[in-house]
Amino acid sequence: MVLYIIGLGLSDEKDITVKGLEAVKSCERVYLEAYTSILTVGKERLEVFYGKEVVIADREMVEQEADVILKDAATVNVAFLVVGDPFGATTHTDLVHRATELSIPVVPIHNASIMNAVGCCGLQLYNYGQTVSIVFFTETWKPDSFYDKIAMNSRIELHTLCLLDIKVKEQSIENLARGRKIYEPARYMSINTAVSQLLEIADARAAAEPDAVPAYTKYTIAVGLARVGCDDQKVVAGTLAELEKVDFGGPLHSLVLAGRMHFLEAEVVRAFAVDKESFDRHAQVSQH
Amino acid sequence: MVLYIIGLGLSDEKDITVKGLEAVKSCERVYLEAYTSILTVGKERLEVFYGKEVVIADREMVEQEADVILKDAATVNVAFLVVGDPFGATTHTDLVHRATELSIPVVPIHNASIMNAVGCCGLQLYNYGQTVSIVFFTETWKPDSFYDKIAMNSRIELHTLCLLDIKVKEQSIENLARGRKIYEPARYMSINTAVSQLLEIADARAAAEPDAVPAYTKYTIAVGLARVGCDDQKVVAGTLAELEKVDFGGPLHSLVLAGRMHFLEAEVVRAFAVDKESFDRHAQVSQH
Repeated sequence: MVLYIIGLGLSDEKDITVKGLEAVKSCERVYLEAYTSILTVGKERLEVFYGKEVVIADREMVEQEADVILKDAATVNVAFLVVGDPFGATTHTDLVHRATELSIPVVPIHNASIMNAVGCCGLQLYNYGQTVSIVFFTETWKPDSFYDKIAMNSRIELHTLCLLDIKVKEQSIENLARGRKIYEPARYMSINTAVSQLLEIADARAAAEPDAVPAYTKYTIAVGLARVGCDDQKVVAGTLAELEKVDFGGPLHSLVLAGRMHFLEAEVVRAFAVDKESFDRHAQVSQH
Repeated sequence: MVLYIIGLGLSDEKDITVKGLEAVKSCERVYLEAYTSILTVGKERLEVFYGKEVVIADREMVEQEADVILKDAATVNVAFLVVGDPFGATTHTDLVHRATELSIPVVPIHNASIMNAVGCCGLQLYNYGQTVSIVFFTETWKPDSFYDKIAMNSRIELHTLCLLDIKVKEQSIENLARGRKIYEPARYMSINTAVSQLLEIADARAAAEPDAVPAYTKYTIAVGLARVGCDDQKVVAGTLAELEKVDFGGPLHSLVLAGRMHFLEAEVVRAFAVDKESFDRHAQVSQH
């Protein structure tokens, strides 16, 4: 009948919308996408709340077993739950594609995602440039395309939202090579790691091009956000060097590099500052 | 006790989250901000759904009567409802400020807003540049700062979300001058009007600077979105010239100017195209 793609919002089982909850209750089968983001509660809490079994859909399943997920969807409703908003991730594009091929209507139910909830830090959403992703560096792989994007945003004085890497159900190179389905523990990038990687790349770029205007430095004002929308949400503003030392607690973390702030934005961000004197020294603020 | 600022999402009374609904039910007084956006249902439907009276808070009230809204909030809960997400608009900044002064805790409850729900058009949220606002032109006032912002986005191949003007409870110049509290009917900018204003400015800029690369032209691919998240949502892609002639029906409308599209983005957008041949001729698509 229908494939519902339902956004769960950011925190716990009660962030689903009333419309979304009604849709879940109408479904024969309920899948939870659990590899691009997480709630603060496990699937057991969702199951109790919905009064239904919830099947964890990992990347393998979503990418390779769309037909299993969509089985009988011509005659029963199926729910595919996504943390945040259905369109925040592209991971279920194939699933939607397959449903369309099978003439199964796809109904998305929207919700908050970090892309709009980040507004809570005081930097207005319409003053952001392109969003960047920061992935875990390895010894041999340090993708740094975020630097050029931040440079473009900063040149036109815009803020940059940095989405931090999540590694769920990854195999070690050894296990991958041997075809062993043994998975590493989940890893969620902390703001500290993100800042350290940002500064590593800034140093490398400064060494390579000493005359270029840097996209950002350790004195750039940024805002770290942990567990947005949760009761224990933590928002701290400061220079990158300051934020590298702040303990933000458990996942999920996000980071915003501030461009030039309107004075009304600066007023809100300053209230989150770890060191207000340092904030006043380093913030770029416009008075109109 | 608490001032809740609760996002209502985009469509009707059931787009509130379960958490938001519980918060409303705990409140002694419930206000609805009704001048920066609207739902498809009136306050009566909300009142029935909540089992509570809902007071419409217009701009005057929010800006001048914060203390009325916050009356007794030290001892009872108060809800301030906002269409979309609490941080999409800045209109209630003063209210939050006043609550903070009075030591009343402010608890925001997130929801979807057009800033993330626009992802449904197939253009990925992380490929957007700065969001612009398009306001109703008058004979003598044609603010065109959107042009330069779109130019910056388009130069780095990003998409641009255009938020379209809403005029609620505005007074005519005559009534304003005479101090008569008589208000004009609400006006919501259509995609057609937005396109017409965009093209008017493009023509003016091209005449003034004939050698400059235009930020966009009537052949630029764009996506019009009406009533996002509602059952009768309408999404149509085409050149600006094509979209100017499409009937999108009732409010609210939004418009996205496409930058260079990834081929997977283009595939989704093409499915919305009013004329697929024209889309293929004008779309800028990258293959990687």
